[in-house]
Amino acid sequence: MTGLSRALVAEALGTALLLATVVGSGIMGTQLAQGNDAIALLANAGATAAILYVLIVLFGPVSGAHFNPAVTLAMRLRGALGTREALAYIAVQIIAAVVGVALAHGMFDQALLQPGTHARAGTGQWLSEGVATFGLLLTILLGLAHRPAAVPALVGAYIFAAYWFTGSTSFANPAVTIARSLTQTFAGIRPADVPWFVIAQLIGALAALGVSRPYLTAR
Amino acid sequence: MTGLSRALVAEALGTALLLATVVGSGIMGTQLAQGNDAIALLANAGATAAILYVLIVLFGPVSGAHFNPAVTLAMRLRGALGTREALAYIAVQIIAAVVGVALAHGMFDQALLQPGTHARAGTGQWLSEGVATFGLLLTILLGLAHRPAAVPALVGAYIFAAYWFTGSTSFANPAVTIARSLTQTFAGIRPADVPWFVIAQLIGALAALGVSRPYLTAR
Amino acid sequence: MTGLSRALVAEALGTALLLATVVGSGIMGTQLAQGNDAIALLANAGATAAILYVLIVLFGPVSGAHFNPAVTLAMRLRGALGTREALAYIAVQIIAAVVGVALAHGMFDQALLQPGTHARAGTGQWLSEGVATFGLLLTILLGLAHRPAAVPALVGAYIFAAYWFTGSTSFANPAVTIARSLTQTFAGIRPADVPWFVIAQLIGALAALGVSRPYLTAR
Amino acid sequence: MTGLSRALVAEALGTALLLATVVGSGIMGTQLAQGNDAIALLANAGATAAILYVLIVLFGPVSGAHFNPAVTLAMRLRGALGTREALAYIAVQIIAAVVGVALAHGMFDQALLQPGTHARAGTGQWLSEGVATFGLLLTILLGLAHRPAAVPALVGAYIFAAYWFTGSTSFANPAVTIARSLTQTFAGIRPADVPWFVIAQLIGALAALGVSRPYLTAR
Repeated sequence: MTGLSRALVAEALGTALLLATVVGSGIMGTQLAQGNDAIALLANAGATAAILYVLIVLFGPVSGAHFNPAVTLAMRLRGALGTREALAYIAVQIIAAVVGVALAHGMFDQALLQPGTHARAGTGQWLSEGVATFGLLLTILLGLAHRPAAVPALVGAYIFAAYWFTGSTSFANPAVTIARSLTQTFAGIRPADVPWFVIAQLIGALAALGVSRPYLTAR
Repeated sequence: MTGLSRALVAEALGTALLLATVVGSGIMGTQLAQGNDAIALLANAGATAAILYVLIVLFGPVSGAHFNPAVTLAMRLRGALGTREALAYIAVQIIAAVVGVALAHGMFDQALLQPGTHARAGTGQWLSEGVATFGLLLTILLGLAHRPAAVPALVGAYIFAAYWFTGSTSFANPAVTIARSLTQTFAGIRPADVPWFVIAQLIGALAALGVSRPYLTAR
Repeated sequence: MTGLSRALVAEALGTALLLATVVGSGIMGTQLAQGNDAIALLANAGATAAILYVLIVLFGPVSGAHFNPAVTLAMRLRGALGTREALAYIAVQIIAAVVGVALAHGMFDQALLQPGTHARAGTGQWLSEGVATFGLLLTILLGLAHRPAAVPALVGAYIFAAYWFTGSTSFANPAVTIARSLTQTFAGIRPADVPWFVIAQLIGALAALGVSRPYLTAR
Repeated sequence: MTGLSRALVAEALGTALLLATVVGSGIMGTQLAQGNDAIALLANAGATAAILYVLIVLFGPVSGAHFNPAVTLAMRLRGALGTREALAYIAVQIIAAVVGVALAHGMFDQALLQPGTHARAGTGQWLSEGVATFGLLLTILLGLAHRPAAVPALVGAYIFAAYWFTGSTSFANPAVTIARSLTQTFAGIRPADVPWFVIAQLIGALAALGVSRPYLTAR
């Protein structure tokens, strides 16, 4: 396998397992929590944080462990990878994210793909996605600059917090957003709400690139 | 003591304490959670992750801290230990797992062994066990390759996530599966469901060996 | 940007994101927890601990990651920064904390600033704030002396515990206290109760400076 | 201050803050959890684990961070400190533990000392305390041998698990047991039940010393 194929397989495995965790833990949480969604979100956030830590350690040395088109875009703008490579990453991330959702549904004996019905829109939601992605990119960019070995734990911890402090529970990832429009469970989103989430996420990512610049160059 | 005896005692202590934790925390969780199984599973998953982290740090340098026939099989196939040694490991793991279940029952004043009654079967469950064990072996194999000192934390974090994202709550371990067929509490499984779980686990482990190969050799 | 401007921007970003997390996760927790405030506090404490770990890793190398006038005061008394710098830090922390509260409100479609109504007073509360801030400063001062790389995790872990073991849920930070007087949600405090909290916090911080002295000089 | 005074102050501060956390988080948990004791125990276990991690990092380099007569006894038997020093440690631990309980009560506006009424007796409870203390000492002894820098995290993680997997919620510490006989809250124990807990704890500690010997000498 070439370096790029190995990287793309890593992005595929990581993104699929990430989505399987996000959607699967949401299903398990709501099945068991007797309607107390705070407990379901606690499980959902804890499981997502834990698997992010694992997946970024496992695949970071191979592909950078982006699992997220907003991250790949930022890394492209910083020159860490080429345009072609970036486009391949993003395509693989989106496809693998959908596969991960289907995998979660399969593990819970549900229809593999389900058009989402959970309405998520409005200024609070969009502001949330902008802030969530801004914070995620800041975490990755400053984390790589100041303590690269801690990036897996940093991203996991950040996402745990962001699930709770944003009004949208922090999707912060266009591939995740698209894939979550294919589930009607806890983690779902209405397809019509996806584009606005993605736009907010990209604005947040670009803002983080700008804000973090003085900290990345001046040390 | 010879090196092998010391390793087998380590596997015995670790596997027994692991099962005592899995079953004991399930009992405590259900006793206190007023029927909200999501809280019980949160406790169960947190306790299991924490003890895995501890036990793998303590016994990793002695025996490799497998505590799991699927891990021992994978390590045998990778040439990390011989056939005899592997068989001794697996026998000890199964016996110690049963002892651990009895220990948990004893600490809660229950009958020491109880034939399991919790039905766990169907394609969702089997797919879950395959995915869970695939992910566990991937975590161990790539973790050892990329960041060996983090393997205890990686396995703990992975299992926390897998308890939530799989439909079966991730047994991912044939010795654990057999031993859990001897409890009627939260963590139990019907004896008749054990063989299919074990088959799914072994398939998942072998798949992880195949998938991880390019990442283990090419660095 | 000069070193001081970069430090002040770091203090501003960190303190704003800290408050957004404290207030935002409190809102999300109470919205979902069906009146079970223990679950809301679990989410609130976990999210706060996680973001503190992240923010101190990201901004520690730039500004020291105080985000807290009591910490800045202690560092000033230890000679780590000058009086002017310290005053600038404190002004920025207070303003950014208020911005963070407004940001959280915005993400949940609420009025941006809301005069707090949650009464928090009495000897138990004041003792709590003294103990909470004493422990926080002890954690920072001894942590920096014994294991500086662990300070982000130490502060996160300490605050998680202090949310639970103090009767006041551990504000332990004058900027946080002022800003939390501008929300009527879970994390709020009545403006009239703020001065006594701040006094108790400063006493706790000074006590920690005194108690930790023999451990900081004698090694 | 001499080395011994500094160590004794460290044991006093650490043990008092440990007990304040154990008892205080139990009070907060039960006040908020609407009778769901599993949520209260989750908070209690999480807070205790977090503060143990913090306190052992802060005071480990000064006194060894025992905070526990069973640990001091084991360390005395391994020759790590003299008889006089050990007796001073134990006296300080017991007194500080009682002070910590009173501090927790004070922070929640309760009577400072309250004779415990929570019955904890029977073979399951005693077996639990033996196993809990056995595991704690194994964690400390093998942890110090294999990865000393991880001992704070190991002890925190172990105690989190042991709160859940033992029938007694794992006191595992004679000073803690005595002090908890002075609260009528969640964490309390009837004074009459204390001696049997302590005996079981000491048996568990001695068993761990024996079992861990081959692993401590043969590397």
